[in-house]
Amino acid sequence: MKPTRIVVIGGGFAGVNFIRQLAGNEAFEITLVDRNNYNFFPPLLYQVATGFLTMSNISYPFRKLFRKHKNVHFRLAELIALHPEQNQVETSTGIIGYDMLVLAMGTETNYFGMENVKRLAVPMKTVSDALALRNYLLLQLERASIEQDPEERKRLMTIVVAGGGPTGVEISGMLAEMRKRIFRLDYPELDINDMDIHLVDALPTVLAPMSKASQTDTLSYLQQLNVKVTLNKQVKDYVNEEVLFADGSKIHTRTLIWTAGVSATPLRGLPESCFGKGKRLLVDIFNKVAGTANIYAIGDNCLQSGDPAFVNGHPQLAQVAIQQGRVLAKNLLKKGESWAEFRYNDKGSMAIVGNFKAVADLPKLHFKGFIAYMMWLAVHLFSLTRYRNRVKTLMNWAWAFFTRDQALRYIVREKKSS
Amino acid sequence: MKPTRIVVIGGGFAGVNFIRQLAGNEAFEITLVDRNNYNFFPPLLYQVATGFLTMSNISYPFRKLFRKHKNVHFRLAELIALHPEQNQVETSTGIIGYDMLVLAMGTETNYFGMENVKRLAVPMKTVSDALALRNYLLLQLERASIEQDPEERKRLMTIVVAGGGPTGVEISGMLAEMRKRIFRLDYPELDINDMDIHLVDALPTVLAPMSKASQTDTLSYLQQLNVKVTLNKQVKDYVNEEVLFADGSKIHTRTLIWTAGVSATPLRGLPESCFGKGKRLLVDIFNKVAGTANIYAIGDNCLQSGDPAFVNGHPQLAQVAIQQGRVLAKNLLKKGESWAEFRYNDKGSMAIVGNFKAVADLPKLHFKGFIAYMMWLAVHLFSLTRYRNRVKTLMNWAWAFFTRDQALRYIVREKKSS
Repeated sequence: MKPTRIVVIGGGFAGVNFIRQLAGNEAFEITLVDRNNYNFFPPLLYQVATGFLTMSNISYPFRKLFRKHKNVHFRLAELIALHPEQNQVETSTGIIGYDMLVLAMGTETNYFGMENVKRLAVPMKTVSDALALRNYLLLQLERASIEQDPEERKRLMTIVVAGGGPTGVEISGMLAEMRKRIFRLDYPELDINDMDIHLVDALPTVLAPMSKASQTDTLSYLQQLNVKVTLNKQVKDYVNEEVLFADGSKIHTRTLIWTAGVSATPLRGLPESCFGKGKRLLVDIFNKVAGTANIYAIGDNCLQSGDPAFVNGHPQLAQVAIQQGRVLAKNLLKKGESWAEFRYNDKGSMAIVGNFKAVADLPKLHFKGFIAYMMWLAVHLFSLTRYRNRVKTLMNWAWAFFTRDQALRYIVREKKSS
Repeated sequence: MKPTRIVVIGGGFAGVNFIRQLAGNEAFEITLVDRNNYNFFPPLLYQVATGFLTMSNISYPFRKLFRKHKNVHFRLAELIALHPEQNQVETSTGIIGYDMLVLAMGTETNYFGMENVKRLAVPMKTVSDALALRNYLLLQLERASIEQDPEERKRLMTIVVAGGGPTGVEISGMLAEMRKRIFRLDYPELDINDMDIHLVDALPTVLAPMSKASQTDTLSYLQQLNVKVTLNKQVKDYVNEEVLFADGSKIHTRTLIWTAGVSATPLRGLPESCFGKGKRLLVDIFNKVAGTANIYAIGDNCLQSGDPAFVNGHPQLAQVAIQQGRVLAKNLLKKGESWAEFRYNDKGSMAIVGNFKAVADLPKLHFKGFIAYMMWLAVHLFSLTRYRNRVKTLMNWAWAFFTRDQALRYIVREKKSS
């Protein structure tokens, strides 16, 4: 029997967990298409951006990940468009035919149509973003260190983080820790009290999807770290080094870190009727895209109906993506039996705030402080793709723990030397 | 007494070793100017380019390096010009005055006026170069993996390394090891026998400054690794994906790695009479630049006269730079006594060829094979700037030793995500 040709677009949590179930099974011939040649672990991007981990600590090359499995192929390419009538995808490096297509492209930063913000703010979605942010932050401090004009120096030293989700909370907490322990020592030219770190969100709380207790604890941790948290505050524009808010107020800054929203990665070749809120692909309880015969979507880029506890679809979380990938693959492995309907098993969620402090919501319990930090550490370490990264990341963290001073603060430009 | 204001341009071996002697001494106020915010260890760049070490294994931020010393300041800037009459240097971020200027800018890649080579070849002098080379090499293999035309595939899989010095030898040896152990597994689509690695040099030998025995052993190691070594072969041009040689022959390739020459980093503001062969600054036996009162040059960018054993100047080696930096600083510390003349103490030289094989010339002895490899390891490990890097680099190497398969094969683009 000829193997089923499956093309998977995107090697994040959803795509990789889907493929893993089928790797080595000769009934399937799988091609993974990704714009990068590596998988990475988004929850730790903020540690790359702040120089505590290298990108290699949180990444793993696809070719090595699937090297042992002859039925898994990798293709470095951007998706251009789907051609569902021909059962083909068009990529930047050519056409690929399929029997079944799995869309797992995740989301991208959403600037809500604000062109200035898109152009000038620094996003935090990809490894390239994190490295660019590291360069950008350090460069502002270098500039501040020689700036004579106090107002311009203040603008260079002010950081506004927009978005009070986990990424925004984690990066503002980490920057506040660095201000206290590192920047003060590295930049003796600067009065580090001039450095303001703002966290703003349009909602009335940080970490909106978490428990009330987690929200309150997080807010209090951030305030202990002297992060200026402002809620109910919506960014409207970013002009002349001023972040402008809906209420008419503004903050002067050269650094706006944008973690305030995502939308599904856009897609050409499917009718409008396939898409729901946030451009997410509408899928049934088996993750099949509405109105298609052999196209599936898993992870952040789909919006699923039919899960009784999540009538408005699932939150865009790693756990949902992982479980959808696994369940879809396991359904493909069934012979004759009817497919299992997807039910999201919520194992809880957590966020880290600065050194050694975190909040965690388990289905019925709330944890905070050092215990939550250790839980966060265990879960994230365990989730890292492969053994090597775990060991190395643990060593980096152990180092950071003992010295409280990682030193990956490099400004690396990609330009070729002459 | 007011401290002597010393400005040091360049934080490589020479500059850092100079500063270290004076750090913490209140008689001196030192400003280090560098275009990067980190020191790095050039002998291991080729391991970054091939994905065996991360840039953080071989680098260290200046601000952290000198953090404890209040008399050392760092300034991220490019040198624009000297204004010796005013005792000022002009940089990309402003003017800096000095009492004494120390030029330690090293060298840059020399393309000998070949514009096409400069435009299309990949150099290996900086961390950015090494990262760009890593991206470039992997991208060619990704392209080859989907290329249908056998001739174009061959061009994508052919690598020409120009320059048989240590860098050229080390990178061609490493690539040959990767071909054998890694590329074959990572790229099952490719017939890895199609992958040719050429090492070419205009001279009649590789590692020209080393002993005859080292040259012979290196050649034999490279041949065992199936590197195609061609000597007496001078690159003339690089056009239409063909490297053209002086003897009329050519090699089709998409990848020309250029390690065939350096010249001193150019400098504006000093008269022509200050410069010698290879644009190197002519200095006396105390490293003072000819015709100046308070300008010194140390390391690869100077050409020193007066050392009896090196009447034509010293070779451009790390050891010379380190010793010149230290001797100049120690002379400054002398009170009343006359300054020591510089004498280069040649401790020997070595090069590594592939896994676990190296050659080493001590003043009277020649070593090869695994013993030389262990010597190479010990010396390089010991020379890494600081403790942390040593431990981490050793761990990376230990890992590479046991698994023979480091996995830093990431293609990382710097562009911001949308």
